[in-house]
Amino acid sequence: MTLTELDHDAITRLHTEQQTAYADLKARGLKLDLTRGKPSAEQLDLSNALLTLPGTDYKDAAGVDCRNYGGIEGVTELRAIFAELLGVPVEQLIAGDNASLAIMHDTIAFALLKGFPESAGPWAAEKIKFICPVPGYDRHFSICEQYGIEMINVDLGEHGPDLDQVRELAKDPSVRGIWAVPTYANPSGSIYTEEVTRALVSLEAAAPDFRIFWDNAYAFHHLTETDAPVLDVLGLAAEAGHPDRVLIFASTSKITFAGAGVSFFASSPVNIAWYLGLLGKRTIGPNKINQLAHARYLGSADGVRELMAKHRAIIAPKFERAEQILHDRLDGHGVAAWTEPQGGYFISLDVVDGTATRVVQLAKEAGIVMTGAGSAFPYGKDPRDRNIRIAPTFPTLGDVEQAIDGLATCVLLAAAEQRLAG
Amino acid sequence: MTLTELDHDAITRLHTEQQTAYADLKARGLKLDLTRGKPSAEQLDLSNALLTLPGTDYKDAAGVDCRNYGGIEGVTELRAIFAELLGVPVEQLIAGDNASLAIMHDTIAFALLKGFPESAGPWAAEKIKFICPVPGYDRHFSICEQYGIEMINVDLGEHGPDLDQVRELAKDPSVRGIWAVPTYANPSGSIYTEEVTRALVSLEAAAPDFRIFWDNAYAFHHLTETDAPVLDVLGLAAEAGHPDRVLIFASTSKITFAGAGVSFFASSPVNIAWYLGLLGKRTIGPNKINQLAHARYLGSADGVRELMAKHRAIIAPKFERAEQILHDRLDGHGVAAWTEPQGGYFISLDVVDGTATRVVQLAKEAGIVMTGAGSAFPYGKDPRDRNIRIAPTFPTLGDVEQAIDGLATCVLLAAAEQRLAG
Repeated sequence: MTLTELDHDAITRLHTEQQTAYADLKARGLKLDLTRGKPSAEQLDLSNALLTLPGTDYKDAAGVDCRNYGGIEGVTELRAIFAELLGVPVEQLIAGDNASLAIMHDTIAFALLKGFPESAGPWAAEKIKFICPVPGYDRHFSICEQYGIEMINVDLGEHGPDLDQVRELAKDPSVRGIWAVPTYANPSGSIYTEEVTRALVSLEAAAPDFRIFWDNAYAFHHLTETDAPVLDVLGLAAEAGHPDRVLIFASTSKITFAGAGVSFFASSPVNIAWYLGLLGKRTIGPNKINQLAHARYLGSADGVRELMAKHRAIIAPKFERAEQILHDRLDGHGVAAWTEPQGGYFISLDVVDGTATRVVQLAKEAGIVMTGAGSAFPYGKDPRDRNIRIAPTFPTLGDVEQAIDGLATCVLLAAAEQRLAG
Repeated sequence: MTLTELDHDAITRLHTEQQTAYADLKARGLKLDLTRGKPSAEQLDLSNALLTLPGTDYKDAAGVDCRNYGGIEGVTELRAIFAELLGVPVEQLIAGDNASLAIMHDTIAFALLKGFPESAGPWAAEKIKFICPVPGYDRHFSICEQYGIEMINVDLGEHGPDLDQVRELAKDPSVRGIWAVPTYANPSGSIYTEEVTRALVSLEAAAPDFRIFWDNAYAFHHLTETDAPVLDVLGLAAEAGHPDRVLIFASTSKITFAGAGVSFFASSPVNIAWYLGLLGKRTIGPNKINQLAHARYLGSADGVRELMAKHRAIIAPKFERAEQILHDRLDGHGVAAWTEPQGGYFISLDVVDGTATRVVQLAKEAGIVMTGAGSAFPYGKDPRDRNIRIAPTFPTLGDVEQAIDGLATCVLLAAAEQRLAG
């Protein structure tokens, strides 16, 4: 029976049971951290060959000395590997330093300070709004918040954002962008379909410089044997008459080293020229030695695919175990729903409305640190206070088990508390 | 006899001689490039150990896994080495990615978008001006130009900028910054004395958020056995009652690898907190693997000093030879003056007023590519069209000899042309 069907006595019994379970949980003195989508040491070990690369040969395939200045677009052979994987022309893909978040930040900072090629002027001189499918990636929202870009929530479903909401919002000329994590979205695992993607690139936007920030952070990060396809979003956008609408971001943060990988930016020739023109005043070039090391270590697109299969072998069991425990502990109580992602780094857990903050607090007091409730929403405000992001990749399988089991206790306890109080 | 003392016949003879010399020069079909201050392959070879570092141990001294996310302030043991070298507290020094230019850009972009802690608001909402000692570093000026920051020239002497001019300009509240390359300035080789430095940090500036962009790019890049001292500019600024006035930038671009080094930012605790707060929305952290590699390779402040002595052994002869050829070819003609720097990467050559553009054009046509005339000035405009930046580090000693000898021919020819025309 679900909690809403229980009478007062049954709720009281459940509450007492969960209080006892919670006291036991606290007594175990756990110290577990499920806050961030970080690869585990075992995953990082896969790429330890990078620690002694590129090796004594410091020239790229074109004979460029990667130790010296220059080459702002990045090392060509590495760009070729990711151009193939992302389905974009190599000329339209730039390799950067270790964080695609930085490229996202910089494209927005450049837009604020200078505007895009077709903008009337710098965005900073206007009121700017972004559409934010929720739940979403907190660091996207932090950039907007830092620069006073107003964020408007739209619902993110299994196959992409609610298109009616998006279409309505895009009629506002101050709406200049939408965030998208099209494959295995953070945290919901949503996969944008070709239909949704076509709708987004075809959208009638009031602002001529409307941009889709297409953060393909998990494009190759499959958890099953069925790979979500990489859509030719630049081609679709061009076909729809909006060739400059899409900015693609990706990185090797969860392929090689999270702190010492390579980031990528792909877009139309116009946007690439715009970006490089502005970037050229910021830097003479990226760390080409690290890019060369990556090109040699990964070797080819197939090399990346093989490496991702090894990642899957390490992390898929953690997701499976977490989902199994959620089933075992929470099925039938009507207190939670969660995603069973086909890829990416997160499970998105929805608990009883109004209890997510309490669940995270209970977990924290029991030594299980979760990302703050609301973190997957603009301004950290989950309107229903129900969403919790679970990041199972970093802890060991045993720690994941303990953490999710403890979390389930907190979910039930918070739900029972609320019912008793209500 | 100098050119101005020659009669018409003598000038005509000189002109004919130099025309012949120039024809010979062109006939040699040279292909030489003295445009950028790049280290030579021989200098880069000094640090080839980095190509296989950090090696299999990926943890820093504190046990942090440098392969993963985090640690936005950088690897502590590397920060400690450069804190010692730069004479700043390690807590006030941040290690970044491969380009200090990027940190300079970002501090300005952050100021434009958000303002400094004591600013009334974002700089982008106001008219902003910067004081630019000239000749100076073209990439500093490019950042200002990109963002519409008005640049005002002041004369840079052997020991720093003209303080009367600076004091006068700082009375304007729209003047918010001054560029400074305090040690072995680019391109003049100027060394800011303690007296000048004290004057700058003590300056009465109308703007409360006036900043000195202290680009210590060549702090350890001595060309003689007498090292210019590194001044405690943060301490001097605090003593003068302006603790937040100075932003220090440095990098290993000309210590290890120009394209794959580590950059540094040092300032007051207030500015460091301001910077990290904003940077934290841009990135989760720098490439710590590269920083760890650098910490292991350099080892200590003395390790850096020893390495710089090896650089000196490679490049000092190029400077000596270039200066000798300038003396041999141009002494007594009254057509040029040049610096004999005690460190850094450049010789600043002043030719006859109004002929620098012509000299660079003649050299280019003879296969000797120099940085464009005027490049060391804001907006690329040298008011006297006389300054040429010579970068002798990258070419071989033989190429430097040929290039400077050819350049001297162009200087004389252009001067003779002007006299004949005038």
